[in-house]
Amino acid sequence: MTLKNDTFLRALLRQPTDYTPVWLMRQAGRYLPEYNATRKKAGSFLNLCKNPELACEVTLQPLARYPLDAAILFSDILTIPDAMGLGLYFAEGEGPKFERTIQNEDDLARLHRPDPNQDLRYVMDAVRTIRGALADRVPLIGFSGSPWTLACYMVEGGGSDDFRKIKSFLIRRPDLLHRLLDLLADTVADYLNAQIEAGAQTVMIFDSWGGVLADGAFQTFSLAYTRKVLDRLVRTRQDQGKTSPVPAIVFTKGGGLWIEEIAASGCDAVGLDWTMNLGRARRLVGDRVALQGNLDPMFLFGEPDQIRAECRKVLDSYGSPREGHGHVFNLGHGISQFTPPDHVSAMVDEVHRHSRSLRKTSV
Amino acid sequence: MTLKNDTFLRALLRQPTDYTPVWLMRQAGRYLPEYNATRKKAGSFLNLCKNPELACEVTLQPLARYPLDAAILFSDILTIPDAMGLGLYFAEGEGPKFERTIQNEDDLARLHRPDPNQDLRYVMDAVRTIRGALADRVPLIGFSGSPWTLACYMVEGGGSDDFRKIKSFLIRRPDLLHRLLDLLADTVADYLNAQIEAGAQTVMIFDSWGGVLADGAFQTFSLAYTRKVLDRLVRTRQDQGKTSPVPAIVFTKGGGLWIEEIAASGCDAVGLDWTMNLGRARRLVGDRVALQGNLDPMFLFGEPDQIRAECRKVLDSYGSPREGHGHVFNLGHGISQFTPPDHVSAMVDEVHRHSRSLRKTSV
Repeated sequence: MTLKNDTFLRALLRQPTDYTPVWLMRQAGRYLPEYNATRKKAGSFLNLCKNPELACEVTLQPLARYPLDAAILFSDILTIPDAMGLGLYFAEGEGPKFERTIQNEDDLARLHRPDPNQDLRYVMDAVRTIRGALADRVPLIGFSGSPWTLACYMVEGGGSDDFRKIKSFLIRRPDLLHRLLDLLADTVADYLNAQIEAGAQTVMIFDSWGGVLADGAFQTFSLAYTRKVLDRLVRTRQDQGKTSPVPAIVFTKGGGLWIEEIAASGCDAVGLDWTMNLGRARRLVGDRVALQGNLDPMFLFGEPDQIRAECRKVLDSYGSPREGHGHVFNLGHGISQFTPPDHVSAMVDEVHRHSRSLRKTSV
Repeated sequence: MTLKNDTFLRALLRQPTDYTPVWLMRQAGRYLPEYNATRKKAGSFLNLCKNPELACEVTLQPLARYPLDAAILFSDILTIPDAMGLGLYFAEGEGPKFERTIQNEDDLARLHRPDPNQDLRYVMDAVRTIRGALADRVPLIGFSGSPWTLACYMVEGGGSDDFRKIKSFLIRRPDLLHRLLDLLADTVADYLNAQIEAGAQTVMIFDSWGGVLADGAFQTFSLAYTRKVLDRLVRTRQDQGKTSPVPAIVFTKGGGLWIEEIAASGCDAVGLDWTMNLGRARRLVGDRVALQGNLDPMFLFGEPDQIRAECRKVLDSYGSPREGHGHVFNLGHGISQFTPPDHVSAMVDEVHRHSRSLRKTSV
């Protein structure tokens, strides 16, 4: 089968497109009443992640509402540390927590490298189920946290304001942290390769906490391991005897200062948060990677006309399409659970409309 | 009287110094047992801020322990909104809160522009008391939050993870937000001018939340009002018939991407967090402003030898002293309350030692 809408993949590969494709980080999420209904049916967030049928259901919900150009696997960023034996749970009203954390050499020795097709089979089943249900309408994105971001959760035991535990670890025992990150890089690569084998047509690495690191430490403890993952990825898939490329996106929240180094990591596209001007980003790296981003998700709290104006600003900041450049519109971070769903319609519509008109005027 | 140690002021004014001066954001704080004793005596954090004798006592405490090159007024960033009538309070174990917040035109109309010498007289009294007690050992830094950062607290009613209220305000009612920011710019300028008149020898504007804004919005809603404050500052003081310059530092947490625009705002020095490489910052703006920063405060959790190595990295990243350039060593953010006090000794000592040796080798 051929994709009915391959605009997203074409943009990532810096091929010409008729308009700017758009999807939203966390597009299957709590701002949608139908998501909350399915989650209720599942009983808990983790049950929802671990049930391929329900994970498929919520993955497709935003596509039924909006003409989005990609679907993203519904899953959690912390499936890997859970499969490594740390015991992921969610306390009501709080973020993710682990029963066990990594504090020393012994904790590290107890971790095992999971077999994604065994230990994380529910994720691969979800990928296969979703691909079947999507019926090639749009491509499916698989994803993982970056080694550094996963290590943050594994050492901190949950979210953090100051990352004191992992940064103390970093400065006091860099040797141990490197061992942990090395194991995570292998595990993340296995995990993403298994997703690709199961049907993911693009993969995205979320380095949600790369931006909390000092310059120098970011390159050593985050980017080096993202690069190791990218090096080990099988970047193609077989589809009815045809070999198709599987583009890889790296998103480092707060990583704008390091965009040139991130762009040189071996990825096809760099995700940007809203602090980076897209035109500037494009001047720096736009002939080497595609760019993805970067509307402030809080701007979706404006009135529809105001949202449309902000979408045009983002598209205009990227500028006219040009050969060898590519832009995927997205938010600069996950959509807020408080967003009115009809505001997303205004956004998606304006991105498609205005980006088509930009292509007309630039010809 | 002449300052016994004017190294800090000289560095800010990009004049030659024998070594790199150093102080720490939040140097008078909870990591010091003597601070906690005084705070206990005061009964509460706000009492401590509002009592000039006790504020003076804690301001001087870190100078008794470490050979720091500057003192900073002990006060809170939220004295201004408190004086404007919002009712600042601190709930135990939580951050600052306001009894009243700004949600609409009526709330805005109720705000009054405080007279710093009346409504914030306790701050000016603290400045005078500290200057007397310092006896010109080192210069005293006065400070304020930036208009944008104050507005964040005034609209959110406290800290925030996503700044949803102020950003909704920004997109829905930019007209009202501009009026609030305009009033705050005048108020901050009055406040800092009164601190200078009372004896502050440097002023620093903390734009703690500038970095949460989208590119474009930062320039419009944060930097434009910081610039307005700087334009209105009286940048000199009279001291025994002599006119002395009063340098102004702007610190935007997460503002590295905008360093060139911040450097052009009219300030003498730009404070940087740890995500920005100092050498790169210097190449971009080092002949126009001094730079202040930027050790990750979490690195103070290393062993003393590790801390010394990280201090050398920061100094080396700035590079050799050169005419017309200036560097003030600091953390990239406030010191953590959990920091072992003797680790600060290692830091201050290494900054002084290594920066002297850099000057020897570069001659």
